[in-house]
Amino acid sequence: MKEIRQPGAHSYVFSRYLEPIAKVNPGEEVAIFTKDAFEDRITKATDIASEILGRYLNPQTGPIFVEGAEPGDTLAVHIIDIEPTRDYAVSVHLPNFGGLTGTEITRMLNEPLPEKVFMYQLADGMLTCNERLSFPWRPFLGTIGTAPDLEAVSALTPAEHGGNMDVPETKPGNIVYLPVKVPGAYFYTGDCHAGQGDGELCGTALEISAKVTLKFELIKGKEIKWPRIESPTEYMVVGSARPMEDAARIAYAELIGWMVELGWDKWEAYQALTQIGKLHVGNMVDTYYSLVAKIDKKYALSASK
Amino acid sequence: MKEIRQPGAHSYVFSRYLEPIAKVNPGEEVAIFTKDAFEDRITKATDIASEILGRYLNPQTGPIFVEGAEPGDTLAVHIIDIEPTRDYAVSVHLPNFGGLTGTEITRMLNEPLPEKVFMYQLADGMLTCNERLSFPWRPFLGTIGTAPDLEAVSALTPAEHGGNMDVPETKPGNIVYLPVKVPGAYFYTGDCHAGQGDGELCGTALEISAKVTLKFELIKGKEIKWPRIESPTEYMVVGSARPMEDAARIAYAELIGWMVELGWDKWEAYQALTQIGKLHVGNMVDTYYSLVAKIDKKYALSASK
Amino acid sequence: MKEIRQPGAHSYVFSRYLEPIAKVNPGEEVAIFTKDAFEDRITKATDIASEILGRYLNPQTGPIFVEGAEPGDTLAVHIIDIEPTRDYAVSVHLPNFGGLTGTEITRMLNEPLPEKVFMYQLADGMLTCNERLSFPWRPFLGTIGTAPDLEAVSALTPAEHGGNMDVPETKPGNIVYLPVKVPGAYFYTGDCHAGQGDGELCGTALEISAKVTLKFELIKGKEIKWPRIESPTEYMVVGSARPMEDAARIAYAELIGWMVELGWDKWEAYQALTQIGKLHVGNMVDTYYSLVAKIDKKYALSASK
Amino acid sequence: MKEIRQPGAHSYVFSRYLEPIAKVNPGEEVAIFTKDAFEDRITKATDIASEILGRYLNPQTGPIFVEGAEPGDTLAVHIIDIEPTRDYAVSVHLPNFGGLTGTEITRMLNEPLPEKVFMYQLADGMLTCNERLSFPWRPFLGTIGTAPDLEAVSALTPAEHGGNMDVPETKPGNIVYLPVKVPGAYFYTGDCHAGQGDGELCGTALEISAKVTLKFELIKGKEIKWPRIESPTEYMVVGSARPMEDAARIAYAELIGWMVELGWDKWEAYQALTQIGKLHVGNMVDTYYSLVAKIDKKYALSASK
Repeated sequence: MKEIRQPGAHSYVFSRYLEPIAKVNPGEEVAIFTKDAFEDRITKATDIASEILGRYLNPQTGPIFVEGAEPGDTLAVHIIDIEPTRDYAVSVHLPNFGGLTGTEITRMLNEPLPEKVFMYQLADGMLTCNERLSFPWRPFLGTIGTAPDLEAVSALTPAEHGGNMDVPETKPGNIVYLPVKVPGAYFYTGDCHAGQGDGELCGTALEISAKVTLKFELIKGKEIKWPRIESPTEYMVVGSARPMEDAARIAYAELIGWMVELGWDKWEAYQALTQIGKLHVGNMVDTYYSLVAKIDKKYALSASK
Repeated sequence: MKEIRQPGAHSYVFSRYLEPIAKVNPGEEVAIFTKDAFEDRITKATDIASEILGRYLNPQTGPIFVEGAEPGDTLAVHIIDIEPTRDYAVSVHLPNFGGLTGTEITRMLNEPLPEKVFMYQLADGMLTCNERLSFPWRPFLGTIGTAPDLEAVSALTPAEHGGNMDVPETKPGNIVYLPVKVPGAYFYTGDCHAGQGDGELCGTALEISAKVTLKFELIKGKEIKWPRIESPTEYMVVGSARPMEDAARIAYAELIGWMVELGWDKWEAYQALTQIGKLHVGNMVDTYYSLVAKIDKKYALSASK
Repeated sequence: MKEIRQPGAHSYVFSRYLEPIAKVNPGEEVAIFTKDAFEDRITKATDIASEILGRYLNPQTGPIFVEGAEPGDTLAVHIIDIEPTRDYAVSVHLPNFGGLTGTEITRMLNEPLPEKVFMYQLADGMLTCNERLSFPWRPFLGTIGTAPDLEAVSALTPAEHGGNMDVPETKPGNIVYLPVKVPGAYFYTGDCHAGQGDGELCGTALEISAKVTLKFELIKGKEIKWPRIESPTEYMVVGSARPMEDAARIAYAELIGWMVELGWDKWEAYQALTQIGKLHVGNMVDTYYSLVAKIDKKYALSASK
Repeated sequence: MKEIRQPGAHSYVFSRYLEPIAKVNPGEEVAIFTKDAFEDRITKATDIASEILGRYLNPQTGPIFVEGAEPGDTLAVHIIDIEPTRDYAVSVHLPNFGGLTGTEITRMLNEPLPEKVFMYQLADGMLTCNERLSFPWRPFLGTIGTAPDLEAVSALTPAEHGGNMDVPETKPGNIVYLPVKVPGAYFYTGDCHAGQGDGELCGTALEISAKVTLKFELIKGKEIKWPRIESPTEYMVVGSARPMEDAARIAYAELIGWMVELGWDKWEAYQALTQIGKLHVGNMVDTYYSLVAKIDKKYALSASK
């Protein structure tokens, strides 16, 4: 299996303006190595994150050129496996970052929260910091996306192209559908999480470096506006925006669109999601908040019966 | 078992300024009869909701005086059972109401969405409108709360006192904790839903009239700021606000407070919810949005080991 | 001229459930005495506001019964004069209150901002705390409103009924139009400000007690949804909501409605406000934010030429 | 005077990844030619904007390389003059764009608003569409900014780098201060408006092509985070974010920072802006909303007396 490692500096943007670091073919399974959101710089509980960290966070491996991908296609990324490349994860309380603190966007005059590093040992399927902070291994890709058409977007941002969505559904066994906006798609991924609660409340999950096994497929001539996810049992859309209600609106509006593609009348789809849809918060800390709207396939497919 | 029916007009506010319709004792189990959110006025698919409905929506049964309740106590409401009092539920697409339309608050110049009534037959544990719109019986109380201290709050509004939270967790088997702000608590409930998806997207769930069996208990001298819910396996807080991120902040901040009561250090609780908390949208349609933050008891109780 | 003083405790709600303290006739000019937002309790720079203040803030004088007012009418309140009843104003930095700090609604884990009392001496048309903090006398009514139909609304809240709008345009020389929802209108006012910047950034303006001279008129059978203000040169609407963009939408949508009443085509009104409307922030600190949308009469009246 | 015209296609991003089209020296006065937001494609009232317009809106002239500019400097742009290069302006009601309609971000299921083109003739200092829609010539630069450090940002977006702020204060006589993030600053401007109300309500102002006379100066080693504006009488900061309250927070927090640079104590600056600050809405339609916070120099400079 082809292994893809970032040859030089990692990317901190989802950008068409960089040179591809590798090429993959549709149908090909590849292993991609990712650094953690702190560029693997934090290694012990006594590290002072704000001194150690570089200028940018969330290094991405990419861009990866997908042969045959053209604007107007959809890139289907099958997440086959996520393996840790070390035996610990890190979470950090950073100043002016997180869901219950003033930030660079929600500006406050209050003093920042205290910094703190939490080191978690990975063993027996558990990540354990201490006897209270011990959680199961539930790995997923914090960041996954393609290059936008025109913009170069920070690796901290989730948007139409995917990016830093921080939703636990981008996990092994699921398929992530991403819009292709440039020839070759320019795929990036990184920011693996060994686990995360809804909202990623303090702003950093159980951050790990990882070996990620993916398979790419192209759906030619199929355009989607926002990232979609398919699990064995559910269809999902991720909406990212501020305020949070706009992320919710995008997620559900796009899921209605998907249901219409599946044969639903628009108003019946609106009604169905009212009664059976699911909507949870992926992140409430990034430059845009990400929410995931879902419908169980057994309901979604009832219109085509 | 004592049965409580509204003697005259139902209440459309959570208010201390009304006369109690019944008294209950702590520990007593009572059956409360509730009308649906449309005051049971919509009975067939051809009804024009905007013509039939009265001036106010969401009639409440109450206030019910809880003996011994004093400001500064917490009222624990055990939801024992919800039985339908008819064999159908109703959902309606109303003009300028819902999650994907301009509303009285999010004002737009667009034409309103088309009105439509969906009638669901209840049989064999399913609510069925047609072959596509058929969903399981998952009853809960859309509205449950006490009277605020000073204000009289619309039955359409969720806030610190509970009220129109529209979260599926106020269901049989769970305990809802509400702040007591006035002597006797002045409890109200109504707006039963035979089922609902996250967000209550179109603004109306599977609305039913019901017989609700509740048991009340008092936790004397225990003050809470926001409604809490306990299931057999989880602790939860409901936050209600606009924009939606403020509802999320309230829910998680109060859940941290609860965890501190359980013996947690504040920063470790913040860290734990980052990695294992749950956060989903109850409603994205009411005057305030309601989100539910949760933690599994097995994690929540680890601090007291 | 009739003088109206609160006979007992002031009101902390806009409520129909209280007994009127006075009656006024349309066309009658009356003097109303108001306490400051702190109930006149803070009198020196060394006072510790959080210890001195009572349970509620923003005492209102009222309700005042307006003879002949019926639901569906509009109450026109001419603000004739505001005279201070003391020679100082007070502003206070309170914990967890203000525009650049976490609050009870925008919950944060940060430590609160430091408390601080600013005493301003009123002399020669200036309010002076020190040589840097010295501002002109620009008095207005922070709070002015009628009783809602069904709800009793906190005196800290601005909404359809007016209330705690904290917009500098409710000042002498202007007319405030308020919806009448209950027989007698149940008018309240209070919270006079000797001056205030846009946004009322720290949450408290130059707070004074005052003698307010008003004249009431009724516009029979004229319904308005949101408070309107007329100055000698401008028409204005105050929208109050969260998030702030919803307050902006309400203010401009209602101003379009007013222009349509003046003979405008809806789409031309939308276009006109795009090019010549004004929109500023009244408060960014209250339970709802208040924004004022305006159009100069010379443009507004061009449709009826 | 050097004249700068876009040699090929205009830019639709603020990007460091493009080749400079011209170089300017600090102190040099140059004339820059800009197209209107529609790339000058709409020329008559019967044009159907949604058919005529290209894929992107808001063409920029640039990047312009400022000799000697280095990251960490501030670029001071003196706006000397804005002259129209044609005798008409255009405003358009576009589908799913504007302040009182569902948009790509605030997703709704409602039908879009009707499209409409408004042609305004420029004569005698007035822009006149018809007898109701006739407004004075008040030109300003809708878009002005530098290239961000890492990202390439759409010309529709206002942010730290300036960009599509749509605030009327970027007008002749004022100085706009922009952060320099890349060597040469990579300055862009465009989107001239012959006039605009607060909020740019329908989403398009009085759009014109123009000849813009600017003079650039560098403040070496001076870092600013957000765009500042200086008029002969006021200091201003533009904050851009969603929800709107976050734009307000940024604008006022940065203005406090500026006042601290001028010698103010932080808490006194907070207090001063509470009593004398100004805060109005620039745009309520772009990808981020822009608000302008201001203080009169006579107050701002009192701390250094």
